[in-house]
Amino acid sequence: MASPTQTKSDSGAEKYADINWDELGFDLVPADYMYVTKCDKEENFTTEVGNIIPYANIAISPFAGILNYGQGLLEGLKAYRRDDGRVLLFRPEQNAQRMQIGAERLCMPSPSIEHFVEAVKQTVLANKHWVPPPGKGSLYVRPLLIGSGPVLSLVTAPEISFLIYACPVGNYHKVYKAIAQAKARGFSDVLFLDAVTKKYIEEVSSCNIFIVKGNVISTPAICGTILPGITRKSIIEIALGFGYQVEERVIPLVDLFDVDEVFCTGTAVVVSPVASITYGDKRIEYKTGAETVSKKLYDMLTGIQTGRIEDKMGWTVEID
Amino acid sequence: MASPTQTKSDSGAEKYADINWDELGFDLVPADYMYVTKCDKEENFTTEVGNIIPYANIAISPFAGILNYGQGLLEGLKAYRRDDGRVLLFRPEQNAQRMQIGAERLCMPSPSIEHFVEAVKQTVLANKHWVPPPGKGSLYVRPLLIGSGPVLSLVTAPEISFLIYACPVGNYHKVYKAIAQAKARGFSDVLFLDAVTKKYIEEVSSCNIFIVKGNVISTPAICGTILPGITRKSIIEIALGFGYQVEERVIPLVDLFDVDEVFCTGTAVVVSPVASITYGDKRIEYKTGAETVSKKLYDMLTGIQTGRIEDKMGWTVEID
Repeated sequence: MASPTQTKSDSGAEKYADINWDELGFDLVPADYMYVTKCDKEENFTTEVGNIIPYANIAISPFAGILNYGQGLLEGLKAYRRDDGRVLLFRPEQNAQRMQIGAERLCMPSPSIEHFVEAVKQTVLANKHWVPPPGKGSLYVRPLLIGSGPVLSLVTAPEISFLIYACPVGNYHKVYKAIAQAKARGFSDVLFLDAVTKKYIEEVSSCNIFIVKGNVISTPAICGTILPGITRKSIIEIALGFGYQVEERVIPLVDLFDVDEVFCTGTAVVVSPVASITYGDKRIEYKTGAETVSKKLYDMLTGIQTGRIEDKMGWTVEID
Repeated sequence: MASPTQTKSDSGAEKYADINWDELGFDLVPADYMYVTKCDKEENFTTEVGNIIPYANIAISPFAGILNYGQGLLEGLKAYRRDDGRVLLFRPEQNAQRMQIGAERLCMPSPSIEHFVEAVKQTVLANKHWVPPPGKGSLYVRPLLIGSGPVLSLVTAPEISFLIYACPVGNYHKVYKAIAQAKARGFSDVLFLDAVTKKYIEEVSSCNIFIVKGNVISTPAICGTILPGITRKSIIEIALGFGYQVEERVIPLVDLFDVDEVFCTGTAVVVSPVASITYGDKRIEYKTGAETVSKKLYDMLTGIQTGRIEDKMGWTVEID
């Protein structure tokens, strides 16, 4: 196979965007097309022809609910290119469901699961040449539901917009490390504790957290303040399949002092091992590298996501 | 004096916008002009000529920090028209200071206090004919500081925008009542308790809360989760001037069961008496009407704001 950046198949569908895929990081390179639809707050979204438009700035009222009162929510998922060139989505219906739950909490109508998944598919298909070559990264897809109509007081905006846009991203690990090195105090992220007692671990700034001790893998139970991560859910299912005992429970901070491994999960970070945690003047180090539970889980998850391992769970959705 | 809607002074400066000022509520009627300036996240805002532009939708990147990660904060203040036609602002430097505090917390540069106040003045001056006639309402002014540049991960947006726009508003009380009547369960608002113990009162959805018992007026102390309201601060100072004892303290929910009056303060609600509070199946009623402490405080505050009572505190700023 020739260098991907110069390859163009007979059908044109396999063409790649003209960027250096080997230098892909987590910088923002918007893909060419986006999906946009709107609805009245009293109505429901309908699918229409012509919702895929060239990527561009959006025009929005200064009084829009999203600008003034934060009436909006985001999702994030990735499209992967298989070795044979076909493009896969990973559990997009899970993102659709989560958007519906969030929308209800923020008093907004939301797209149906079928609409959401179809819109994500259309967006990825329109931007197919922005899905990186196998092994070089993925196309990060960002569905957004926002109160776009003007409001003066704290009520639902009269117009709600559902947008999807995309951006190719490389391996987050590389970037993560760069951020870590750059950060003044030398830490790469923050682990949040519960707001009430400050004694229990909750989540990291953009991902969920797991701890491993022997054959037992534990993660904080979802209880309102912790993101119900789709990667989190998938890792639990994969771990159970491997025969690990998985516990979703309240995890006291002190448990961190006596475990073998700690790792984070999320769409962006996938499965990232944590080398150390510092609490006050106490620093605890954890096992990382090839022989870890997190590496085993990472390999299985990314194998399924990229089509290198057979998807027995029915998690992947092919775009064509 | 002729009907304000038909009046036009010799200079033209006293002309009113062509709307029915008697029917002014809290609906959204954007004033003609807005203030817009931008800066790089690493720089500071500078004042420039030409920042006042016709009110219109703004163009913003789909990846803007404000749309995806809520990187933004709002202020709200009012311009009042005196009986002699001159227009007053109320303590705008307080809003400027609060924006600076919020901006620091959200890792954004913010306008200087002088810049903020000058920009508010320019916005009100450009929209002077939208400042309602005396007694008919006020011009609500909305300064906004938002991460307008595109970001993929949770970092400060590369571009920050400072916007100010405005909308004439009537007496919130009228509207408030309408909302109250419309609300399904018959309540007009929600009083939030502290998130940790759920035993202490904090604030109402868009205002601060005060309780009155005899000569003692109490309000929850500012401790991170309660808005440091400018109306709240002003009411405390006015109450002290009247000889009341004012306490800023932790207020247990049970204190609500044994007080004479409860009232709310805020830019939108000004000083609004609370007729009753329901907690579980317990309903407590409070004194309202002409002979109340809240009415006395309301009269003094609005008297100063509208120029009917001499401003001995130096709180008002004249626009010309």
